[in-house]
Amino acid sequence: MTQRIQAMLATHPQPHSPVDSGVLAECIAACMECAQVCTSCADACLGEQNHLMHLVKCIRLNLDCADICAATGSVLSRLTQSNPEVLKAQIAACLTACKACGDECEMHAREMNMQHCAVCAESCRRCEQACEQVLRGMNA
Amino acid sequence: MTQRIQAMLATHPQPHSPVDSGVLAECIAACMECAQVCTSCADACLGEQNHLMHLVKCIRLNLDCADICAATGSVLSRLTQSNPEVLKAQIAACLTACKACGDECEMHAREMNMQHCAVCAESCRRCEQACEQVLRGMNA
Amino acid sequence: MTQRIQAMLATHPQPHSPVDSGVLAECIAACMECAQVCTSCADACLGEQNHLMHLVKCIRLNLDCADICAATGSVLSRLTQSNPEVLKAQIAACLTACKACGDECEMHAREMNMQHCAVCAESCRRCEQACEQVLRGMNA
Amino acid sequence: MTQRIQAMLATHPQPHSPVDSGVLAECIAACMECAQVCTSCADACLGEQNHLMHLVKCIRLNLDCADICAATGSVLSRLTQSNPEVLKAQIAACLTACKACGDECEMHAREMNMQHCAVCAESCRRCEQACEQVLRGMNA
Repeated sequence: MTQRIQAMLATHPQPHSPVDSGVLAECIAACMECAQVCTSCADACLGEQNHLMHLVKCIRLNLDCADICAATGSVLSRLTQSNPEVLKAQIAACLTACKACGDECEMHAREMNMQHCAVCAESCRRCEQACEQVLRGMNA
Repeated sequence: MTQRIQAMLATHPQPHSPVDSGVLAECIAACMECAQVCTSCADACLGEQNHLMHLVKCIRLNLDCADICAATGSVLSRLTQSNPEVLKAQIAACLTACKACGDECEMHAREMNMQHCAVCAESCRRCEQACEQVLRGMNA
Repeated sequence: MTQRIQAMLATHPQPHSPVDSGVLAECIAACMECAQVCTSCADACLGEQNHLMHLVKCIRLNLDCADICAATGSVLSRLTQSNPEVLKAQIAACLTACKACGDECEMHAREMNMQHCAVCAESCRRCEQACEQVLRGMNA
Repeated sequence: MTQRIQAMLATHPQPHSPVDSGVLAECIAACMECAQVCTSCADACLGEQNHLMHLVKCIRLNLDCADICAATGSVLSRLTQSNPEVLKAQIAACLTACKACGDECEMHAREMNMQHCAVCAESCRRCEQACEQVLRGMNA
């Protein structure tokens, strides 16, 4: 998917990327992946018949993280007439959501051996770090 | 719509609203309305054959604002196991997006007599203020 | 909200509504309301500690219905260069999702006295009927 | 991204995939990619200062296709308590949106040498075919 994103960034008529376009493409890809993986993890948690009661907080954070990552991925995908303040605020929200969801999933992976939470924690970490890199690039 | 939102908040088994539930319901309603109105304004701008070139920035901000308001409305609609940091960061992003889009639409309403931008500016202002009130309530 | 939607439809530079604009505004409003209410019902079900195991199917249908209603409301909000086939197919999907979710919620309202499911069933029925009316208008 | 999707499907506690899980993973990945690429193509078209007037229909179809693909990708990502009728109807809508958007983008790639439309047409075709395969699998 990152390749396709880079192809779209490269063919844009006004390629004013707020940061290095490789960093941007990685962050868009991480947001889209994390949105999908969180949707999937919420659903897998919902199917854990013997553990469901312990996964309520995880499902809630998954749902928030999925919504926020999807919105952030869309906002980041637009290069025409960017507003840096909007971009920064949304990336900051995404970073916060990914950190909260990643922490929760990591705990369930470790303590309850939930494999879907282990995969989800990785996607959250990847997205959290990608958001940090874009923010760092924008503030440089 | 606000009535239906309040009915849902009132029937929740764990009604731990992060702020007064009337303030919360108003903010959810403002987010949902602003998401729809921004989608509609982007489309109306796209149909302005004689002015389209001057409305590119408006369309872009409309699309961002629609995505961000929709995500914020969904996150705010969840009461189970809220994470206040995620909530605050997302509301801050929403407030920023509504301010940027409201400023742009207000200018087109005033200078180019764009009526859809006038309606959209009102929805953006309503949502901006509703977000401010939730943030004030959460920080009180 | 319906008023604001009608104001946006009325100020559109190319008001080629696929059906009577009152019927269209009602359907957009019903989609936006149903998206919010289903998000809220999924969350309320998730908070039902003593009944959660019986509400898994309801949560899943709520989440699908919320996603589908939100997308349908956005597609319906656009009047510029509509594609009737896309519109009809998406409305048909929305109608199907609202019927499935409404049936499930109605059952939980009746048999388990779930009040959030009762409110949600009403929103699903309103949206189902609004979709039927748009489809009827488009096929007339 | 397809690998991560497959990892999530493989760790699901109730892996009742409506079709072969490889076919499902490919369709989810195609939906997510097409949503991002269509968002990106709408934005690139908006930045085409000398051709914008000719790209209005393309932008509109891009926006619809992005919304519909994102919703379809989410619905397909859920395995718990699937409703086949909802799934089929949403996939049919997605297929229709991808076909309409792919046709429009293909034309702009060919006649106006729009490179972002060429990339977008490929993603639409990939998603259209992936939806066809899931429908074929579900009806088999």
